[in-house]
Amino acid sequence: MYEPLTEQKAIALAVRLGLFDADALLSCQEIGDGNLNLVFRIVNERTNDSIIIKQALPYAKVVGESWPLTLKRATIESQALRTFASYASQYVPKVYYSDETLAITVMEDLSHLQIARRGLIEGKTFPKLSEHIGEFVAKTAFYTSDFGMNQQQKKKLAQQFTNPELCKITEDLVFTDPFFDHDTNNFEAELRADVKQLWQDDELKREVAKLKRLFLTKADVLLHGDLHTGSIFASDDDTKVIDPEFAFYGPIGFDLGNFFANLLLNALARHESECEPLFTHIEKTWDVFVRTFTTCWQESNEPYARVSFVLDDIMNDALVEAIGFAGCEVIRRTIGLAHVADLDELPLEQRLEAKRHALRLGRELIVHRHNLRVDDFKRLVEQTAHVNS
Amino acid sequence: MYEPLTEQKAIALAVRLGLFDADALLSCQEIGDGNLNLVFRIVNERTNDSIIIKQALPYAKVVGESWPLTLKRATIESQALRTFASYASQYVPKVYYSDETLAITVMEDLSHLQIARRGLIEGKTFPKLSEHIGEFVAKTAFYTSDFGMNQQQKKKLAQQFTNPELCKITEDLVFTDPFFDHDTNNFEAELRADVKQLWQDDELKREVAKLKRLFLTKADVLLHGDLHTGSIFASDDDTKVIDPEFAFYGPIGFDLGNFFANLLLNALARHESECEPLFTHIEKTWDVFVRTFTTCWQESNEPYARVSFVLDDIMNDALVEAIGFAGCEVIRRTIGLAHVADLDELPLEQRLEAKRHALRLGRELIVHRHNLRVDDFKRLVEQTAHVNS
Repeated sequence: MYEPLTEQKAIALAVRLGLFDADALLSCQEIGDGNLNLVFRIVNERTNDSIIIKQALPYAKVVGESWPLTLKRATIESQALRTFASYASQYVPKVYYSDETLAITVMEDLSHLQIARRGLIEGKTFPKLSEHIGEFVAKTAFYTSDFGMNQQQKKKLAQQFTNPELCKITEDLVFTDPFFDHDTNNFEAELRADVKQLWQDDELKREVAKLKRLFLTKADVLLHGDLHTGSIFASDDDTKVIDPEFAFYGPIGFDLGNFFANLLLNALARHESECEPLFTHIEKTWDVFVRTFTTCWQESNEPYARVSFVLDDIMNDALVEAIGFAGCEVIRRTIGLAHVADLDELPLEQRLEAKRHALRLGRELIVHRHNLRVDDFKRLVEQTAHVNS
Repeated sequence: MYEPLTEQKAIALAVRLGLFDADALLSCQEIGDGNLNLVFRIVNERTNDSIIIKQALPYAKVVGESWPLTLKRATIESQALRTFASYASQYVPKVYYSDETLAITVMEDLSHLQIARRGLIEGKTFPKLSEHIGEFVAKTAFYTSDFGMNQQQKKKLAQQFTNPELCKITEDLVFTDPFFDHDTNNFEAELRADVKQLWQDDELKREVAKLKRLFLTKADVLLHGDLHTGSIFASDDDTKVIDPEFAFYGPIGFDLGNFFANLLLNALARHESECEPLFTHIEKTWDVFVRTFTTCWQESNEPYARVSFVLDDIMNDALVEAIGFAGCEVIRRTIGLAHVADLDELPLEQRLEAKRHALRLGRELIVHRHNLRVDDFKRLVEQTAHVNS
């Protein structure tokens, strides 16, 4: 029977699992934001050893609304973390235990790291971030794809990661609602004219329809599914990807696109002179991704992996997808239901300017994705800084 | 417990299911080819009413080889027939009963119709064939796609139709083995030079790799998965699609491509002056498919179904895919493991000519699929009739 844990029950579970020494002096604090999950941090006061117990709640609260949300997402999350760990263990928290009925994942405590979004807002650089994320995405993508895994086993893994409820959130909030006059949208009244123009932009919507269709149909690799900078813990040396409850088999460029978009959103909130590290991160992520994927490619048992240009075609597809998905993420984080602190914490006038910039940038990324290269981001951000530029 | 039926047990099952009158005088004959399935035809000698009991065997025999093959395919087959029936009931046999453990499907007897391949070889025209197949493919594709079905329900249906074992047969025998020097290939010694040229054709193989990747990853619509003219019963008035044990969620153009290819293979076995009805069938299938899909489209709840050119883009993708998949099917039926009687029953000299023609045609379809229209098939067949034409 599912029941929400209390701090006492969380401690009792930690003891029962034998995760601390017998003489440990355990304290527990619930540190979640209460919107989707309970997050208990349990510390041995004698040694400072600690763990996290994360429990899914049977509902989601966003902007005051509450709706039911499947507990199955906890199982998806723990299975995704374990699958990712088998290919790129250094970039995910260790999972010690999971319980499907209680919707619980017990895992490594990463409190010594900082959420990357918050650090980037504070002006931190996280010099290893792009190298790590490029390697993480390349390895998890390759080894869960038809090129890095037995193709029959892959189909069974895709079946296991069927995730309709969480995918629906993305289908609605990323690909659909922001492009129509839908009541989940949330933007400043001053932006209404810009947003109305976007809703009438049939050229843009035709391209978003293609990207949504890719998201709905292309069961290519096991994705994190929500790889924004708020799903990444980082320091100068370490990077850990968390919260893969949106994991499912989808298009190879989706996670990269989300990550790029959230770096771009941070750039839009900065002075022009301070954006270089973000563009460098995007380019380096892509370079490391391609380099790592290419190294893995040599191990492929797929006969077509030895045919000229097949790898180039896949890398090219991945980039086109990533740019298009980045455009969707930039737009939905600007006018859709779920925003980013990078923009929302700006004072009104600067925020409005940054958001108008974001809408123009997002559109260009989507519409011109087939003709852009990874080193065009900087130029494109500059070009879209003002209307008709 | 699974056990193969005998004729007596088949009759006993029919009686137990109450499918005949109480005073029926039942006779039973096993009419399958014994390679994959047992097929019992049970007739009430008093009324001539009849049914079919089809039972999967736990192995497949092809060209003397025998390998184990999942019994789950019987469940896939009966579930696919039932799913297709809910959208296009007039084009599939009625299913009266199925038993997962015994791998049995009890269904309508279609012995009054003829297998379309055999009829086409005999020179029959089947005037309704293209209209019916166009409508069948359009309706089953639309209503199982993200445009005709609740998108969450579609994911669960795709999960249910996960079919790794049967998909592997297609992945190997259609997309891979014929394009490499693999021991499953089977062709006349006289063709070796032509086949070797094909194996060295990296431009072709790069394109086949893309088509194979679509087959492996694009979970678009519920497909029959093996829609050649041997999977269709027909008469002048009726058309029934049978044997969907390869059913799975795949790219929308795959079934159309297989159907087109098998009409083309029949054309290659005919005198030039007798091919017109086959080209007409291909064009009409496509026209009816587009017309029917477009009518269904009006019912879609997907907001992007109301955006300009979204339907055109999907229809264009479907045609490009269909042409490419047709090319793969033409080639694999010529030099791969499983041939077609249309070509194999020709006398040697004519057969060799037709098969060389098939290899040239298949290549053109694959490599130029993005620039072909459905009324180009006739021209292309003529152009590839001779080398360097």
